[in-house]
Amino acid sequence: MNYKLMLRMLGRTLQVEALCLLLPLVVALLYREDPRPFLFTIVPVALLGTFMARIKSKSEFFSREGYAVVGLIWLILSLFGSLPFWFSGEFAGFMDCLFEIISGFTTSGATILTDIESLPRGILFWRSFSSWIGGMGVLLFTLAFLPKVGGRTQVLVQAEVPGPISSKLVPKTVRSSQILYFIYIAFTVIEIAAFLLAGMPLYDAVVTTFASVCTGGFSVMNASLRAYNSAACEIIAIVFMILGSLNFSVFFLVLTGRARQALHSDELRFFLGVVVLASLLVFGNILPLYDTAGHALRDAVFQVTSIISTSGFCTTDYNLWPPFAQTILVLLMFVGGCSGSTAGSIKCGRILLAVRCSIRSLLRLSHPRAVRVVKLDRKAVDEETLNTIFVFFIFFFLLLGAGCLVVSLDGVSLTTAFTASLGCLSNVGPGLDGVGPVASFAGLSGLSKGVLSLQMLIGRLEIFPILLLFHPAAWGRS
Amino acid sequence: MNYKLMLRMLGRTLQVEALCLLLPLVVALLYREDPRPFLFTIVPVALLGTFMARIKSKSEFFSREGYAVVGLIWLILSLFGSLPFWFSGEFAGFMDCLFEIISGFTTSGATILTDIESLPRGILFWRSFSSWIGGMGVLLFTLAFLPKVGGRTQVLVQAEVPGPISSKLVPKTVRSSQILYFIYIAFTVIEIAAFLLAGMPLYDAVVTTFASVCTGGFSVMNASLRAYNSAACEIIAIVFMILGSLNFSVFFLVLTGRARQALHSDELRFFLGVVVLASLLVFGNILPLYDTAGHALRDAVFQVTSIISTSGFCTTDYNLWPPFAQTILVLLMFVGGCSGSTAGSIKCGRILLAVRCSIRSLLRLSHPRAVRVVKLDRKAVDEETLNTIFVFFIFFFLLLGAGCLVVSLDGVSLTTAFTASLGCLSNVGPGLDGVGPVASFAGLSGLSKGVLSLQMLIGRLEIFPILLLFHPAAWGRS
Repeated sequence: MNYKLMLRMLGRTLQVEALCLLLPLVVALLYREDPRPFLFTIVPVALLGTFMARIKSKSEFFSREGYAVVGLIWLILSLFGSLPFWFSGEFAGFMDCLFEIISGFTTSGATILTDIESLPRGILFWRSFSSWIGGMGVLLFTLAFLPKVGGRTQVLVQAEVPGPISSKLVPKTVRSSQILYFIYIAFTVIEIAAFLLAGMPLYDAVVTTFASVCTGGFSVMNASLRAYNSAACEIIAIVFMILGSLNFSVFFLVLTGRARQALHSDELRFFLGVVVLASLLVFGNILPLYDTAGHALRDAVFQVTSIISTSGFCTTDYNLWPPFAQTILVLLMFVGGCSGSTAGSIKCGRILLAVRCSIRSLLRLSHPRAVRVVKLDRKAVDEETLNTIFVFFIFFFLLLGAGCLVVSLDGVSLTTAFTASLGCLSNVGPGLDGVGPVASFAGLSGLSKGVLSLQMLIGRLEIFPILLLFHPAAWGRS
Repeated sequence: MNYKLMLRMLGRTLQVEALCLLLPLVVALLYREDPRPFLFTIVPVALLGTFMARIKSKSEFFSREGYAVVGLIWLILSLFGSLPFWFSGEFAGFMDCLFEIISGFTTSGATILTDIESLPRGILFWRSFSSWIGGMGVLLFTLAFLPKVGGRTQVLVQAEVPGPISSKLVPKTVRSSQILYFIYIAFTVIEIAAFLLAGMPLYDAVVTTFASVCTGGFSVMNASLRAYNSAACEIIAIVFMILGSLNFSVFFLVLTGRARQALHSDELRFFLGVVVLASLLVFGNILPLYDTAGHALRDAVFQVTSIISTSGFCTTDYNLWPPFAQTILVLLMFVGGCSGSTAGSIKCGRILLAVRCSIRSLLRLSHPRAVRVVKLDRKAVDEETLNTIFVFFIFFFLLLGAGCLVVSLDGVSLTTAFTASLGCLSNVGPGLDGVGPVASFAGLSGLSKGVLSLQMLIGRLEIFPILLLFHPAAWGRS
């Protein structure tokens, strides 16, 4: 392992984090709040980062180091990023600070806060901004890693770099990541403008956008997006949650005049199909509870989009919905958006390939001699990729069960334990019952919060990098 | 497809069923109950069976026909086997009769009866006897099919027939099935004797044994095994539920003086390890609810064994247990016994292989060049088998979600919907909450009962045969 290079990369990460912390510092100063939580963090983070970034090292770097460094980057970002929360004195303990910032950086949106509106604006700005940073990080991570962990349709990378995929950590071309930055920032600017036009105050528009383009789900209002009571704001959020759930290569193709090619994606069609079908089923099921069909449809589409995009915003307390609608939302928590997006969970591409592969195996039993290839976007998918997808499923369900078991020790209902674990592992955030849309994770034990924080990190980084950190073989000599 | 041969095999099955129905007829006559429900069934079943069994056909038979005929055998057995229930007039409708008999033949033990003790003894005898027949059928099915659907450790078959595994339906040797018959019947006789020694009435001993050696779970008492309030009876049941969860090749090896070889099975050790660990965890969790540690330990071991063996007997209302213990029971519903046993669910062998394969994939990421083989019992497992196991998982979870969604339409709690679907698909039977140990499936809609019946059949036949029945490709020309 090239530890020196790893330390240098972590140092650079801390330098970037110190720079990012300047923004909430400015916000705190603007609103005449106490700037010390940020100052106390920025100074040591900047110093430590600069010290580490100066370590000299060889440039040899293989996938093993890559996975380890990605896991460590999210850990170290969270560890230092939680300090402003801790210094603010508004949080019950350090575990709460860590849970909240991991929820941010992993764009989960699960919260341990019970009265969000009572917190300083600078602190809430950092909370939402962390998920915006996390979303960007995930896009870059995806660019570099996804081809190796079973997510395909890396059209962006493939379009830029023909030929076999390199196993190095660094993104294939600087241009690819520049395009990602551009699209992500453009969405951010457009959504802020849209929210402002819809009448949202500037501060709210900015922080809600931060938590929305990254499909995070943090709100600065106790009542989440319900608080604005504005159909326009909800529709804007729906649009950007859907955009955030699409493979970002779609936008690249659209930008370069290949919109038709973008629409030919199996995964995209599957995702949109699920959104439409789930919305209709939920709409039909909740209709009797509403005065107008329009309001029922808006809530149905909003919640379906919010869950499948793994955002976790809410415009209604779906704990009060009938069990059928709730079951659909729980099933959507397993689905998630498209690969190459900021959405979490299993993702449509993996589900589509797993289903196709399963049908192939079924047919093989009745026609043993037939040779069949599983295809995505009319291209054959190799067996190695399919195998990695299956292993992803196995780990996902094992981790889900383990998390559920730990949370159930707190004596909460089975639904609470199950959806808490699922909500964190899938990066949706809130679940049902005790961790539902009007509740928070505050009541859980420190052990549960720690395990759920780990679930968020594991889920965010497509399971493998964090698990590898715990395996001694990843650290041995190669 | 060789339809004529298929019809002939179904005819033979009906003839066997008519013979089997003579036993409950005798019981009904002994207790001076109305024999007509059985007479009205036996006569047409015997006639139809004899007519179909006389159809002449070629003897060509491939795996495609094999899967179809196995699915159809269970369907036709259930369809005609439900007639005595229907003629008895004790059931609310035909769907209820069908649900109950499918629950029997699949050894699930889920019931739609609310007052079991009010039913005639002949009818209850048939209900329990059907699960005994089902258990035998599963052992034969396993013998013929398991090697093809990802269950390995078919030591029995491998010990009898060296060389590559044939793809024909008929068991490899007549001797293999004779050994199975012998072991199964020996267990039945021994358990009846043990129950009698423990003070259980003869009728109860026989029917409880029928539902116990097959890991079914039907009881003739409303309070299940609690009703006998006997530690001895519970311990006897625990022993035979565990025996029923082991690969029957273990007994074959023990009988032929190779006990040491039998104990070297990875799956066996995994299964026993899970039983011990889960029992201890549940024991520690429920201890505060009990007066004596002995009673708590007995209930913990009994419920853990009952669930992991997919029996579903109960000695306590575990709906009242703390969430942690309940979560363990729910997780055990996914586990099931060993392959080659009468237990249902995913089974320990598949779980063990899936976990080993997942760890291999994880290590491959950090050491891409290392070639690793997944082993079971020190032998390499081929990739085709691993692939089939993964596909099994995918189908299992897809079907679980679909079943849960349908049941949730009835407006029951999420826990009820989820555990009803899981209980049926895993052939455990009862679940939690509305379908818990003191409740029944009676309150569910006809649609739910129909779908859950299908889940029981699908789960029982290791998923593939029943799904193939629904796929047009299975019926087309080869």
